[in-house]
Amino acid sequence: MYRLCGRTVGSLQSTDISCNLPRMSAPLQNTLKLRVRYPEVDAMGYLHHSRFLQYFELGRVELLRDMGVSYADLEKQGIYFVVTKAEVRYKLPARYDEELTLLTKVVKQTHVRYDHAYELRKGQLLLAEGATTIACVDRSGQLIQIPDWLLKPAGFTT
Amino acid sequence: MYRLCGRTVGSLQSTDISCNLPRMSAPLQNTLKLRVRYPEVDAMGYLHHSRFLQYFELGRVELLRDMGVSYADLEKQGIYFVVTKAEVRYKLPARYDEELTLLTKVVKQTHVRYDHAYELRKGQLLLAEGATTIACVDRSGQLIQIPDWLLKPAGFTT
Amino acid sequence: MYRLCGRTVGSLQSTDISCNLPRMSAPLQNTLKLRVRYPEVDAMGYLHHSRFLQYFELGRVELLRDMGVSYADLEKQGIYFVVTKAEVRYKLPARYDEELTLLTKVVKQTHVRYDHAYELRKGQLLLAEGATTIACVDRSGQLIQIPDWLLKPAGFTT
Amino acid sequence: MYRLCGRTVGSLQSTDISCNLPRMSAPLQNTLKLRVRYPEVDAMGYLHHSRFLQYFELGRVELLRDMGVSYADLEKQGIYFVVTKAEVRYKLPARYDEELTLLTKVVKQTHVRYDHAYELRKGQLLLAEGATTIACVDRSGQLIQIPDWLLKPAGFTT
Repeated sequence: MYRLCGRTVGSLQSTDISCNLPRMSAPLQNTLKLRVRYPEVDAMGYLHHSRFLQYFELGRVELLRDMGVSYADLEKQGIYFVVTKAEVRYKLPARYDEELTLLTKVVKQTHVRYDHAYELRKGQLLLAEGATTIACVDRSGQLIQIPDWLLKPAGFTT
Repeated sequence: MYRLCGRTVGSLQSTDISCNLPRMSAPLQNTLKLRVRYPEVDAMGYLHHSRFLQYFELGRVELLRDMGVSYADLEKQGIYFVVTKAEVRYKLPARYDEELTLLTKVVKQTHVRYDHAYELRKGQLLLAEGATTIACVDRSGQLIQIPDWLLKPAGFTT
Repeated sequence: MYRLCGRTVGSLQSTDISCNLPRMSAPLQNTLKLRVRYPEVDAMGYLHHSRFLQYFELGRVELLRDMGVSYADLEKQGIYFVVTKAEVRYKLPARYDEELTLLTKVVKQTHVRYDHAYELRKGQLLLAEGATTIACVDRSGQLIQIPDWLLKPAGFTT
Repeated sequence: MYRLCGRTVGSLQSTDISCNLPRMSAPLQNTLKLRVRYPEVDAMGYLHHSRFLQYFELGRVELLRDMGVSYADLEKQGIYFVVTKAEVRYKLPARYDEELTLLTKVVKQTHVRYDHAYELRKGQLLLAEGATTIACVDRSGQLIQIPDWLLKPAGFTT
């Protein structure tokens, strides 16, 4: 039988020593430059609060690309990730045409789920923090195991 | 071999008398009420110009629904419509929370294409006019004939 | 000096008896019918997870309208609400053209903030739950008190 | 009195020799790399047809930036550009995560308007062509003259 095991990566400690998932040699994180687009901004002139989730998704995709994996290719193989939980704390507004920096980190992973954390900044200024949980599903939306080769990307050592 | 024939409906005259497509007993048109949503509005406080195309699409879907056809169901059957041409002339801005009226008309149809025309109004005030051409394709994007039952909806007589 | 006082409404108990905010005679909630639009759906055919926040915003606006207040008018008076926190738990996907029901409730209010909770359903099926905190700001983004007449809408008794 | 004069730039000939607008020393055009984002794609897996107008807008903004002008700064000075006409001819679909190249050209300018033309390509493959007219307005939406310094950017000679 398949046993899920929680495992925290990056600056956090593993919560399950016995888990045989690979240990990372380097933190799983991506830094992405983003420029706020005109139709992403609302009547206040602020980046609409729903757009932060779209930025976070871009961060996840680029983090995956850093690992040598294209999310578009995953979907062609019938492997999808759906967001099951999302949280954003908005500190300061982002405005049209501002260049922002998004830090995306994997903070936990199991055999079926990833937890990511996000920091969106303008220069050093923290604009927002976020967290999401994504789950691996097949084309029909059924929960499936994350493929082994995806759990052991370049940058991981066992 | 299959011969396409242009056919105008509504207030326009047929351009091809020999075409054996059904004649409409009533004009093919839909009137849709729409309220401008917050994230659809840009930093000027105006409905973003790209959104008009999204409204037009809503008009087409509702016109189809009036004919007893669900576009969602069409897609499940592998019948898709893709936009091959779109044109908008913007006269006056629409603002957040304003209630607008969209008139959508079929102005021409062939065995593979529909041409629609649109008028977006606030009360009597004309905000924008538009026109699109949509083509019928299968799941792979190949041009296919519009199914016969779709060309002869309720409201048509032969 | 201004003292904030937490106050829960609806099914929750007040956390601050001494707070002199009005008591509601009826629960502050709105039920909104929404139909999923084509460009709101992603490549999986699911309502994109960022769109849920846009739906929640529509729910807040309609709840306000039920209270006799137009958010568009508020903005013209220099009164804005910004989202400071948002959370969504996604249970089941929503698909293109499905008709959904969104329940929006005020669960807490202070002199500068509202907390809302949301349930998005397809029929009886719960698709997602959410929670947001919005804060009242002026045109420059400075935190301001929610106007008294807004805190004492129809449906409230003191 | 102010007399408008049509003037075509780039590969087109001037239609009004007497017009005292500056002659360009170099073609006014920008080439922009864009990667299709997940929420920009619809249920067919194609870049939604309304998004092309958003891409074109990005092209205009970057072309302006090439000229040393930030559109965000223009708006702060009370100078806005609104789209008065848009046209797109869609040839081939763009898909999620594909890297596209957008060519944006000024094809005509008067003292109040710019006409742009666009080509969106995947590699050498032409996906879509477009054209827009934008007009210069003030904060209240009234048509104003394009500031002289904006009509004579770097890259122009008189």
